[in-house]
Amino acid sequence: MAGNSLGKEFMVTTFGESHGNIVGVLIDGCPAGLSLSEKDFQDDLDQRIPAQPKIVSSRVERDAAKMLSGVFNGKTTGAPIVITVENKEINSGDYEQIKNLPRPGHSDYSAHIRYGGFNDFRGGGRFSGRITVALILAGTVAKRMLGKYGIDVLAYTTSIGKVRSEKSFSVDEIRKNRGLAATRCPDLVCGKKMEEAIVAAKNAGDSVGGIIECIVLNVPAGVGDPLFDALDADLAKALFGISAVKSVEFGAGFGVAEMFGSQNNDTFLIKDCCVTSATNNAGGILGGISSGEPIVVRVAIKPTPSIGREQRTVNLLTMEETVLNVKGRHDPCIVPKAVPAVESAVAITLVDHLMRTGFIPKVLLDKKD
Amino acid sequence: MAGNSLGKEFMVTTFGESHGNIVGVLIDGCPAGLSLSEKDFQDDLDQRIPAQPKIVSSRVERDAAKMLSGVFNGKTTGAPIVITVENKEINSGDYEQIKNLPRPGHSDYSAHIRYGGFNDFRGGGRFSGRITVALILAGTVAKRMLGKYGIDVLAYTTSIGKVRSEKSFSVDEIRKNRGLAATRCPDLVCGKKMEEAIVAAKNAGDSVGGIIECIVLNVPAGVGDPLFDALDADLAKALFGISAVKSVEFGAGFGVAEMFGSQNNDTFLIKDCCVTSATNNAGGILGGISSGEPIVVRVAIKPTPSIGREQRTVNLLTMEETVLNVKGRHDPCIVPKAVPAVESAVAITLVDHLMRTGFIPKVLLDKKD
Amino acid sequence: MAGNSLGKEFMVTTFGESHGNIVGVLIDGCPAGLSLSEKDFQDDLDQRIPAQPKIVSSRVERDAAKMLSGVFNGKTTGAPIVITVENKEINSGDYEQIKNLPRPGHSDYSAHIRYGGFNDFRGGGRFSGRITVALILAGTVAKRMLGKYGIDVLAYTTSIGKVRSEKSFSVDEIRKNRGLAATRCPDLVCGKKMEEAIVAAKNAGDSVGGIIECIVLNVPAGVGDPLFDALDADLAKALFGISAVKSVEFGAGFGVAEMFGSQNNDTFLIKDCCVTSATNNAGGILGGISSGEPIVVRVAIKPTPSIGREQRTVNLLTMEETVLNVKGRHDPCIVPKAVPAVESAVAITLVDHLMRTGFIPKVLLDKKD
Amino acid sequence: MAGNSLGKEFMVTTFGESHGNIVGVLIDGCPAGLSLSEKDFQDDLDQRIPAQPKIVSSRVERDAAKMLSGVFNGKTTGAPIVITVENKEINSGDYEQIKNLPRPGHSDYSAHIRYGGFNDFRGGGRFSGRITVALILAGTVAKRMLGKYGIDVLAYTTSIGKVRSEKSFSVDEIRKNRGLAATRCPDLVCGKKMEEAIVAAKNAGDSVGGIIECIVLNVPAGVGDPLFDALDADLAKALFGISAVKSVEFGAGFGVAEMFGSQNNDTFLIKDCCVTSATNNAGGILGGISSGEPIVVRVAIKPTPSIGREQRTVNLLTMEETVLNVKGRHDPCIVPKAVPAVESAVAITLVDHLMRTGFIPKVLLDKKD
Repeated sequence: MAGNSLGKEFMVTTFGESHGNIVGVLIDGCPAGLSLSEKDFQDDLDQRIPAQPKIVSSRVERDAAKMLSGVFNGKTTGAPIVITVENKEINSGDYEQIKNLPRPGHSDYSAHIRYGGFNDFRGGGRFSGRITVALILAGTVAKRMLGKYGIDVLAYTTSIGKVRSEKSFSVDEIRKNRGLAATRCPDLVCGKKMEEAIVAAKNAGDSVGGIIECIVLNVPAGVGDPLFDALDADLAKALFGISAVKSVEFGAGFGVAEMFGSQNNDTFLIKDCCVTSATNNAGGILGGISSGEPIVVRVAIKPTPSIGREQRTVNLLTMEETVLNVKGRHDPCIVPKAVPAVESAVAITLVDHLMRTGFIPKVLLDKKD
Repeated sequence: MAGNSLGKEFMVTTFGESHGNIVGVLIDGCPAGLSLSEKDFQDDLDQRIPAQPKIVSSRVERDAAKMLSGVFNGKTTGAPIVITVENKEINSGDYEQIKNLPRPGHSDYSAHIRYGGFNDFRGGGRFSGRITVALILAGTVAKRMLGKYGIDVLAYTTSIGKVRSEKSFSVDEIRKNRGLAATRCPDLVCGKKMEEAIVAAKNAGDSVGGIIECIVLNVPAGVGDPLFDALDADLAKALFGISAVKSVEFGAGFGVAEMFGSQNNDTFLIKDCCVTSATNNAGGILGGISSGEPIVVRVAIKPTPSIGREQRTVNLLTMEETVLNVKGRHDPCIVPKAVPAVESAVAITLVDHLMRTGFIPKVLLDKKD
Repeated sequence: MAGNSLGKEFMVTTFGESHGNIVGVLIDGCPAGLSLSEKDFQDDLDQRIPAQPKIVSSRVERDAAKMLSGVFNGKTTGAPIVITVENKEINSGDYEQIKNLPRPGHSDYSAHIRYGGFNDFRGGGRFSGRITVALILAGTVAKRMLGKYGIDVLAYTTSIGKVRSEKSFSVDEIRKNRGLAATRCPDLVCGKKMEEAIVAAKNAGDSVGGIIECIVLNVPAGVGDPLFDALDADLAKALFGISAVKSVEFGAGFGVAEMFGSQNNDTFLIKDCCVTSATNNAGGILGGISSGEPIVVRVAIKPTPSIGREQRTVNLLTMEETVLNVKGRHDPCIVPKAVPAVESAVAITLVDHLMRTGFIPKVLLDKKD
Repeated sequence: MAGNSLGKEFMVTTFGESHGNIVGVLIDGCPAGLSLSEKDFQDDLDQRIPAQPKIVSSRVERDAAKMLSGVFNGKTTGAPIVITVENKEINSGDYEQIKNLPRPGHSDYSAHIRYGGFNDFRGGGRFSGRITVALILAGTVAKRMLGKYGIDVLAYTTSIGKVRSEKSFSVDEIRKNRGLAATRCPDLVCGKKMEEAIVAAKNAGDSVGGIIECIVLNVPAGVGDPLFDALDADLAKALFGISAVKSVEFGAGFGVAEMFGSQNNDTFLIKDCCVTSATNNAGGILGGISSGEPIVVRVAIKPTPSIGREQRTVNLLTMEETVLNVKGRHDPCIVPKAVPAVESAVAITLVDHLMRTGFIPKVLLDKKD
């Protein structure tokens, strides 16, 4: 079974390896008639390069999208869209030593077993954070589509290590502030402390995790296919497709376990002749179907497994315990880079479900784009 | 797009409504040669009836499985297996009043919009906890299959409301103790406090949530299809297919957000000539592929939305705000009943992935079963 | 991989065995709001009983549909619809002798290998013509749906053995005449000769094949997903899902091999302000997409493999050659019974594709049905 | 629903347009450990250039494959394999005139409707015969895989127009002779007459169709998933994915309609301690499952729709009838070029089904390749 595809109607398949020539994505099922050009991808690609590069790996990836198919006269045709980004500044020699020494916390060992040792292990191959570039390319297309229907997807950092932002912000503030912050946290004061936490971890030869929240505004009620293709189920599947994600929660999330029904139930109200609710503990999804309230989902991102410190591991050839010093350039915190990936996974899944329920047609009727 | 199916090779499709004649499941792709009879389902079905029924709804569901196809001479044939359970003691009149008054916290409103009002709203229809019976029927088949390969799936309650069990138990203790406890918590002392919390909620006309943990032992390393059909992604999708689940986490889960890489990375070790790890923060899954360590997954179950107290809601006909008094029999806590559902979702997903990677063949070669 | 499902959005999964208790079908993805009751299935089920039963097997199957789920207040709910038909008058003893003696022309041998001998061999099990009852149940639902959109699907016999009808008939004539004819051939004169051919074959302890044509009127242009989910590709897949089909052709079919482009190309015309064509060699499908002309597809049905004569075969236990006398009741010609199955396969595929391209919505907006 | 993918476990998705920069293919699910390099594709690509180019279009396409991902150290890794071929010598101006004048026999009109006019119409875009290059790229990988298991797939021309070869040849003769023949017919004498038929059609400003047969040797018995994922059903689906195919038949094919059961049934025999059959009217497939006999499938290829003669058509802008003179370079017969495409469609489907039933594992155990 294949396994590299996401979505049924808006089907996204990624390809490429961290240290191969390219990473890329094939989108099958994108409606015809959407304006799309190579420059549309730049903003999202640039989001992976934090405003203050000192907190990240010294590997600077300047990415540019190349569209190989599916667009004609500036608009999507309904045929598969293939977009690639070249991998530059690759130094595969850095990784040769770890071929038989699986890095703790990485997929090196499990992938070695799964693929009989044939997997491209350089830089983690298919499991590298680099692969999220492919997800982000598809996310750009998905977000452009959602934009045509007034739907807004927005991810941002809410915690790094033990530094947690508790303030809430408007959508406009989030969008503006996260662009200013290396950590992609809209709370700029808190963001400074997050940066310090990352620098401290880096200086200690260590790394640190964090939390990303994603909200989606203006999703109509009635989107989602129960039971197993529930909207929350498919969002979670897409988000766990980002390897560093270890937890996914909606609305009140884990908090529901300690709540009473009378607290957790979101009271329905009428506002401007529409049904709405007083609270949004459900995170905008009830019974796997959107309720019309904002969708709110949070993921926990694990600390980068590649750290500067010496670690104990095993040698798969000799089956003896040994020590490992991971060389190469590593991000002490991948949370900021994961922000556009989370946003993309959510956007792709929403377009897919909006198409499944017929909100987005197979051909965009408004030919003005 | 359909939407009621789970799995690709071991494909489970549920059907039936809470207040229809039956609930049932169709399993397509079950390998030929597995011994299976109607009595095999009884234990799992009975798990939904807690040891001490006073803490649950007065509706007693004595369920019995009926196999309609796919088994010949006591063994699966490779053809689709259909299993049904009759719905008894249905009093649909209880629900007629709520037709246009969506219950807060329920899918009543979102389902009404999604299905244009044609959905069977009685007792929540397709969204009722009753539908998990279908999942449990498939789970029984999946667990029998896993048992042939020495793989053990075990779910149990770890918290109800604010009562949380911190003790750890052996597999044998878990299996034995959870059978004794109305709450399905292997920590019997803690379980008593949980019962008290449930009774207190019930007496207050309220309900309470909780946490279920599920472990899987003896899964070989190398199971899972990255990226989007990752083992954790598919487990999460299956678990969010249970409507009451609002959060899914693996291993250290949300905790990774506050950890350093040096804490979170599970050091590889050699033990008995095999690769193992000193800790299991990864919850047995690295890069979406099983690592050979126990799989550990936790879900948060929301408090039952149906509560005895009067609640505010809206009338969908008049589009006015109103109050709602939900009659009928309600569980003050659905956590114990959700335990076998969680176990089933995990077991089904594992069989599917073990088939995908070829660990379980299409025909069981050992004809002795 | 499962394998018993047809369609993506209107997904039909059949279950049951020839000599089990039931045969049935699960339809997932049927739009909400379609009127449906058990009596709606009777006409199609009765089509399998020819007007003059003397030309068929003495096994008279009076079938009645039972709906188990997915319909509420007389309308589909959007949830999975399960429909079953009981198997009556089963005499499994008739088939016990052939357990290890595969019948020539049947799937007995290939199924035995595929399922490791675990398959239910009685009466062909899953491979019996009896299983087409399940297809016909789904076909009834599909045809009701198409009827709401003015689309007409009509299959009929055009040849039995060497007796071939060359006359063409109007849709009304076809519908009326085929009901009168045991052979389901609208050419009643020719139909009499077909009956004679069948009786002759029966008297000779033999069987005979034939051709079924199916036309679909009023399909809008623009339906079909190239390349691999082309409308003709999916129609062919569905039709080859009927085991006795050995050939599928569209429009001029095999004839195109001998044609010049100037003959085969259907000239486009304008008629009543619409695009149409002077001829229909394409059979209504160009590039895998409907052209707006009638869809015309023909299938060849092989002669019933079970014949009265003694045949040579092998004994799978002793691996020696032997002779076989097939007992039991056999149709000397399955072509008439296959007519509603062909119609159903075509109707199901069309509903699926009309849903994929958005012509049929997920909820039927016209609530009057 | 996407629609550009073929196969479930060995999933092939094509992309690119006739007059875009590239055509290509993404293969997801290819087992790890298969030796593969860019030069492996050349033979199959060259098959599209007939030995005597005078009978084809003057557009000479020298194609070279470029592998973008999925191969490491000369072997497949289990990750998606992307292969592209550049489009050269494109003169899109030739086609601009036909934008609103759909060519009879082509998909121009149906595609225009399906994609709301956004489709890339140049040279037929996605519907051009050029797109079969992508299928052939995947076919090369599939045939290499089959070769490891001793399975041989071989397609060849059996008729062009009214010239039909009735002789049968050995596999070795077929392979040798078809390389020598511009028509890809192993009967070299007959092939000369076929060439004459093509030249005659060309000189008359016309085109001509033909028949391609494909045989597969050494497929084990027991491959195929009844009912709807039957081996013949999936082969037919793949073959109708080639736009010019209007008919598909197996074994005796349409001939079964005129046969008696006693003629059509293939008598089982024992030969060398194995089950075999005296004849092969079934074409190697019984009940949708391979029988162990050679698989024999035939397709009818329609005459090239683009012809030199003036044709009547309609203007989609003015909705008036008009005449069309198709310029550009056209093959008077696409049958020879379709031979490798047919072979590829069959090979891809077989690998997919051999993987589904477990004959081909997810990782090739024999690491020597």
